[in-house]
Amino acid sequence: QAVAAVNPTLIMAFVKSTKNVLSTMVGLEARLGKPHIKDRPQPTYDVSGIIGFSGGVTGTVVVSFCETAAINMVEAFSGTRLPLEDPDFADAIGELCNMIAGNAKKDFGLEASISVPSVVIGSNHQISRMRDVPCIVIPCSSDLGDFTVEVNIKQL
Amino acid sequence: QAVAAVNPTLIMAFVKSTKNVLSTMVGLEARLGKPHIKDRPQPTYDVSGIIGFSGGVTGTVVVSFCETAAINMVEAFSGTRLPLEDPDFADAIGELCNMIAGNAKKDFGLEASISVPSVVIGSNHQISRMRDVPCIVIPCSSDLGDFTVEVNIKQL
Repeated sequence: QAVAAVNPTLIMAFVKSTKNVLSTMVGLEARLGKPHIKDRPQPTYDVSGIIGFSGGVTGTVVVSFCETAAINMVEAFSGTRLPLEDPDFADAIGELCNMIAGNAKKDFGLEASISVPSVVIGSNHQISRMRDVPCIVIPCSSDLGDFTVEVNIKQL
Repeated sequence: QAVAAVNPTLIMAFVKSTKNVLSTMVGLEARLGKPHIKDRPQPTYDVSGIIGFSGGVTGTVVVSFCETAAINMVEAFSGTRLPLEDPDFADAIGELCNMIAGNAKKDFGLEASISVPSVVIGSNHQISRMRDVPCIVIPCSSDLGDFTVEVNIKQL
């Protein structure tokens, strides 16, 4: 299966939107590491938001948080410390991911639709990806905990 | 938050497409139970395919398999018995879900786009849903094991 090249504009859009959304909505400075290719399936963290793209850009973007980071960020974002089981917890994570994806999309310069976010909760769950395009991992750390943005999309 | 009514056409499209795709692609007779509302968050099975809808229909559809059912169906579909860790395993589950969603979409009579499937692997993981529209669970059993189709979409 041929692997397509990654359009760096798409990756940079997520670097920028992740910093922007966390700064604006969570009041948090996200420190982003060097984006790199995810070269084998590995478990992600404990809480993941998944956004699907369709139209001129297809694929998925997964924002995955370790449990502590997810709980801390939801508290900073919503003003309430919520347990993982609370439906408002998943809603808050989903909304953060939706903002990151929507904000990035504006910089694509391409027509694309995003799906409503799905939020997966479960220790060390694994999320598949398309294999005809590299999955680019943006590692992120912050004072509230670590997370990653995994970009697995392609321009049609 | 107001909860919208479910358009029964959308649910019936999934009942029909689930039966069709499993019969055609897996050679399996799926026995579908009565669709019912999922009234609280509960863990889904061990392997789930998630498809996002955007356009005239938004939301997500999750097809969730118990581990045995997933392994058996992938074997029947692909001709090879694969472990959960094999990337081809997730691809096969994703492709089945993609076919179920694509097949259902044709019966919507509405313009809608579907995202590429995400496949989540992890015991008893939980997947959030939109709360402004009911999540309809279609329970399914078969000679290869049990699964559910959870339809959480709305017509705009």
